[in-house]
Amino acid sequence: LYSEKVMDHFRNPRNLGKMDDADGIGEVGNAKCGDIMKMYIKVKDGIIEDVKFNTFGCGSAIASSSMATEMIKGKSIDDALELSNKAVVEALDGLPTHKIHCSVLAEEAVKAAVKDYYDKN
Amino acid sequence: LYSEKVMDHFRNPRNLGKMDDADGIGEVGNAKCGDIMKMYIKVKDGIIEDVKFNTFGCGSAIASSSMATEMIKGKSIDDALELSNKAVVEALDGLPTHKIHCSVLAEEAVKAAVKDYYDKN
Ligand code: FES
Repeated sequence: LYSEKVMDHFRNPRNLGKMDDADGIGEVGNAKCGDIMKMYIKVKDGIIEDVKFNTFGCGSAIASSSMATEMIKGKSIDDALELSNKAVVEALDGLPTHKIHCSVLAEEAVKAAVKDYYDKN
Repeated sequence: LYSEKVMDHFRNPRNLGKMDDADGIGEVGNAKCGDIMKMYIKVKDGIIEDVKFNTFGCGSAIASSSMATEMIKGKSIDDALELSNKAVVEALDGLPTHKIHCSVLAEEAVKAAVKDYYDKN
């Protein structure tokens, strides 16, 4: 049902947790399942130096956001804005159709965190 | 959004894990969100001596199944069959409307495990 990469990121989520000195915080809710996701970014010279996430969502949401944080860490905020849920799903070697909306949650959380950073700067 | 009991069972799930010598195993999928849950029971003289669960579901699913395992442990299998998702939600001091289906997953997993036990005995 789930790829090895999904199971790996579910069991050992990367960048899970809070960030006290975040430059941008995005919090999004999933209309489909009611889950919430929070994403924190630390930005220096336009580069995402650090990123953390937290969610009450399911295994696919955890895996998607874990992968998303790895994909934007060290990248520019403009690159982060271009991260699509499709790219996250591909990096995870796929997700069941029913769980694609969990990867959308991860994409939206990244965008919300970047937007919050822009609003503050 | 979530009660203290939900957060407690989410952060410190009771009876989480596998069971190698289970007398009954129930595996159910949630039509609404596509999540899966597995429940294992160890039965002696009609009493559920031990119970474990595993899920790829969300925080509400983890909290619901954790609470459900506590509610059936030490009880008769007939009592376990009568456990309703409503009772689980009440024991958790409530769940958001969007997440009631997660507690249904826990109820169905218990029933499936008991059914598997009956089928084998
Ligand atoms: S959203 Fe799937 S079990 Fe909660």
